[in-house]
Amino acid sequence: MHNVGCIGLGTMGTPMAWNIHRAGFRLGVYNRSAEKCSAFAREGIGVFASPAALAAWADIVIIMVFGPEALMEVLGGPDGAARSMAAGKTLINMSTVSREATLAAAEQVAACGASFLDAPVAGSKKPAEQGSLTILAGGSPDVLERVRPVLACMGRTIIHCGDAGAGTDMKLFINVLLGALMQSFAEALTLGTSFGLRVGDMLATVQSSAVACPLFSVKGTAIGSGDFEKNFPVELIFKDLDLALQAAGREHVPMPLTAAAREAFCAAMARGLADQDMCAVIRVLEEMTGRSVRDE
Amino acid sequence: MHNVGCIGLGTMGTPMAWNIHRAGFRLGVYNRSAEKCSAFAREGIGVFASPAALAAWADIVIIMVFGPEALMEVLGGPDGAARSMAAGKTLINMSTVSREATLAAAEQVAACGASFLDAPVAGSKKPAEQGSLTILAGGSPDVLERVRPVLACMGRTIIHCGDAGAGTDMKLFINVLLGALMQSFAEALTLGTSFGLRVGDMLATVQSSAVACPLFSVKGTAIGSGDFEKNFPVELIFKDLDLALQAAGREHVPMPLTAAAREAFCAAMARGLADQDMCAVIRVLEEMTGRSVRDE
Amino acid sequence: MHNVGCIGLGTMGTPMAWNIHRAGFRLGVYNRSAEKCSAFAREGIGVFASPAALAAWADIVIIMVFGPEALMEVLGGPDGAARSMAAGKTLINMSTVSREATLAAAEQVAACGASFLDAPVAGSKKPAEQGSLTILAGGSPDVLERVRPVLACMGRTIIHCGDAGAGTDMKLFINVLLGALMQSFAEALTLGTSFGLRVGDMLATVQSSAVACPLFSVKGTAIGSGDFEKNFPVELIFKDLDLALQAAGREHVPMPLTAAAREAFCAAMARGLADQDMCAVIRVLEEMTGRSVRDE
Amino acid sequence: MHNVGCIGLGTMGTPMAWNIHRAGFRLGVYNRSAEKCSAFAREGIGVFASPAALAAWADIVIIMVFGPEALMEVLGGPDGAARSMAAGKTLINMSTVSREATLAAAEQVAACGASFLDAPVAGSKKPAEQGSLTILAGGSPDVLERVRPVLACMGRTIIHCGDAGAGTDMKLFINVLLGALMQSFAEALTLGTSFGLRVGDMLATVQSSAVACPLFSVKGTAIGSGDFEKNFPVELIFKDLDLALQAAGREHVPMPLTAAAREAFCAAMARGLADQDMCAVIRVLEEMTGRSVRDE
Repeated sequence: MHNVGCIGLGTMGTPMAWNIHRAGFRLGVYNRSAEKCSAFAREGIGVFASPAALAAWADIVIIMVFGPEALMEVLGGPDGAARSMAAGKTLINMSTVSREATLAAAEQVAACGASFLDAPVAGSKKPAEQGSLTILAGGSPDVLERVRPVLACMGRTIIHCGDAGAGTDMKLFINVLLGALMQSFAEALTLGTSFGLRVGDMLATVQSSAVACPLFSVKGTAIGSGDFEKNFPVELIFKDLDLALQAAGREHVPMPLTAAAREAFCAAMARGLADQDMCAVIRVLEEMTGRSVRDE
Repeated sequence: MHNVGCIGLGTMGTPMAWNIHRAGFRLGVYNRSAEKCSAFAREGIGVFASPAALAAWADIVIIMVFGPEALMEVLGGPDGAARSMAAGKTLINMSTVSREATLAAAEQVAACGASFLDAPVAGSKKPAEQGSLTILAGGSPDVLERVRPVLACMGRTIIHCGDAGAGTDMKLFINVLLGALMQSFAEALTLGTSFGLRVGDMLATVQSSAVACPLFSVKGTAIGSGDFEKNFPVELIFKDLDLALQAAGREHVPMPLTAAAREAFCAAMARGLADQDMCAVIRVLEEMTGRSVRDE
Repeated sequence: MHNVGCIGLGTMGTPMAWNIHRAGFRLGVYNRSAEKCSAFAREGIGVFASPAALAAWADIVIIMVFGPEALMEVLGGPDGAARSMAAGKTLINMSTVSREATLAAAEQVAACGASFLDAPVAGSKKPAEQGSLTILAGGSPDVLERVRPVLACMGRTIIHCGDAGAGTDMKLFINVLLGALMQSFAEALTLGTSFGLRVGDMLATVQSSAVACPLFSVKGTAIGSGDFEKNFPVELIFKDLDLALQAAGREHVPMPLTAAAREAFCAAMARGLADQDMCAVIRVLEEMTGRSVRDE
Repeated sequence: MHNVGCIGLGTMGTPMAWNIHRAGFRLGVYNRSAEKCSAFAREGIGVFASPAALAAWADIVIIMVFGPEALMEVLGGPDGAARSMAAGKTLINMSTVSREATLAAAEQVAACGASFLDAPVAGSKKPAEQGSLTILAGGSPDVLERVRPVLACMGRTIIHCGDAGAGTDMKLFINVLLGALMQSFAEALTLGTSFGLRVGDMLATVQSSAVACPLFSVKGTAIGSGDFEKNFPVELIFKDLDLALQAAGREHVPMPLTAAAREAFCAAMARGLADQDMCAVIRVLEEMTGRSVRDE
């Protein structure tokens, strides 16, 4: 039975930690702002004063924070987890960061003699609560097998993508598709609207076609009702398309359609939509054409 | 009980006609080359010598032929169905043709005093056999209700898209998405391959993500195994993207991503892939980058 | 000494006709609205009542009208020039029309036993006045040699591009460059402005660089002073980019950058800029980014 | 009369140094590999053992080296010029490096109490020899005035673009145009070839049109004769388009056409053309279409 330490109790990290607890593992938690810890404390779960303290207690340390700066702080900072990592312990970074940040973390952990796993997730709040995330794992297969029972509390599907960093690469692969599909959908819906087609009919047709997918279902409903509250914001998908194109540039892979998608999201950034959901990219087309893609 | 006449017994028209027969309607058939009719004759189904003769007998005439020329011939030619169309009869064109050809057919039928329905389908051979096509109907709602029992033998989902021509418009809307998604997928798979990701892992990740859709499942398997035998060929999706952009030009809808997709399929045409399945568009990227996107 | 008949006395046709007169040829004119003819009448130049009457008198008939409909009317209409064309006469179409319209005109003229030349021009009002147009000629070299002295009154550079239709093709080739360069310039100027560079400095740098060209000089000045009065309007360059991409589609030539330019001008059409000069395409970027590309 | 020290005697630096000498300034030189200095030594010009030694002697230090690493070494390395920079001296960096490297150099020089000028050039070997470069200067206007007589030996046009870094920004602005124009030209020439137009005629038409520019003249001749020997290589223009798009991303300026140009050069990189001249980008289109854009 493992001692599992969770660092980062945000929108994703909190339900992930509860799922580990419910599965019967001994859980300990750390969060930068302490108030997120109180619900855990009430259940008798250990709340630690620093990542280093948590990592001293835990066998498996899971990090789920926002961005590379936060990762570097909780891992390599003065009271960072790396202070206490040692042979026999495993650190799993589930935060989405760049390949560079992932490899830097992997190196830092390896230098302590501990094991490292790169495990970003596909899926947002709801799958996190239901323990049905898709976990994109990079690292040694042995390490993955050892921690699989813990990951299985959080994700229904666990895909071993390759060495450390490969999970991050796979996430970028998926996000390229998310961005490109979103803008394709925005263009097709605007064209259909110009034809006089009803939004509801277009969505019904999509859902009974070969391109039926959860993204079009969720975003189609959101667009039809004019709800652009963020789930996955424009600024994040723009950043990921940008990262993908930079990687593609290094690898000499031409991606003309992805490049067009990046420019579409850049236009959305320019129009001040950074904080809105990625489906708000359709507002740029609506504004340009003077057409409204809404349910009547 | 209707007399239903089916014109066009190709890959799609044959199983569609059988489904009408099996549902208990009185069926009559016509096909330009007679040998396709013999299986129907053996079952005692009426085989007619011309579209005009079939249309004289039938209440409902269904046309499922390839392209606008064939449509014009069987409808408006010397022995075309239009010769016998009259008040009380309904002509349903299920062939995929341009908006112009659809409207010309509608006019010709209306001039006879008969009713017209525009009803192209989404789905290929298998759904045609299973009676699970998606039928995109354009025309008067009354006419649609009258013939719905017949359409229901062929398609599980029937969407009333608007007036005559709207079914064709909806089909173009869906095909824009097919084309854009196909090229997005090709780019993402090539990028992922350059990262060292395995094709099987990428496909598994897609299938457990928000972009999971039948297209990616079917085409992913085809690409992974290097099978580019045509299902929906490059030349047809190229033509549809071209039609969509011409329509978008008339309506002043900018579609930068769709335009990039059209150029990608144009490159595939240039490379001599017109006759291969649309997923062969990835071969342009493979050739360019010297990378092979195949299962090991 | 030739009798030269000019049909079409618009912005371009008028100065072109005067240049023919000044060079000493016997000139006759025809224009649909008669008032454009009066200045010519005052100089004793023959004004004819119909294209047919003019063509009966002239050895060389020059047509410079707006668009294919006008061309068809003055050439093939009831009183069209074709009525009087015969062996020994030459018809030169200098209007810019599609390849199809050019070839139809060529056929009509050939059927009369007369000679045909396709000779659209590059250059606008000023070069027309100065006789310094570039003439893009398509047709038999012999015919071109015979009429060269007349063309030389209007254009400093005469390029024999190939058979009838080749002049029109060459014009499309040049207009692809015009459109692509215009949008490149708009993007670069907007980027430079976001860097804090002054418009005047950017224009000065361009003019001393390898991309110094009359287009950037003229349009740069116009943009800097916010003058979008039409010279070559957005709708015409949009139409030409569209024609070029359709031709490229037929020939299987991928043109991804040209396609992106078409979408940029499509956005300008959507924003209601059809009637403004092509340089108004920068206003779409200005509106999107909230930045103004103007001289201080 | 200034003591002018030149660091970097490559293809550009050598003729620039000679022009300073010829203009009558007292010249001193430094180059990493000493053999480039011998021609200067033979003329009695001072050859220094290190950038630090040269900078101790000179009032004005000019750096013209390849890339940011070389700049950092000759400026901030153990024997770097910064060792000897002091109040009253001016350092002019004429090497093309990123904005970041420029600003780092500016800071290092300012820390010594010396003046800094950012002065990349537009133009290559020939204008360097003729003293007809375009110099894009960033920095204080006072400093620019003080060194203008020295710059004037090297460049006919000196444009003050703004503060330190602005020269680099302006160079990126121009290179965006270079890249976009190059790919436009490649597409238009390939389309024209598919029309059956002759290369020579297309080039002649361009040169008498509104898009006539030195780039099209030089690259058109190179393409027509199949000469892709590098002048400005594919990898450099690809890098600059990439830098421009990254900057545009930060500033939220959508550049769809520039993005398409980047992908075209990315395809050229993928095809192994990194080292060839930027005009080799047309070879990707030639390969794709099977058409050859060459003079007969």
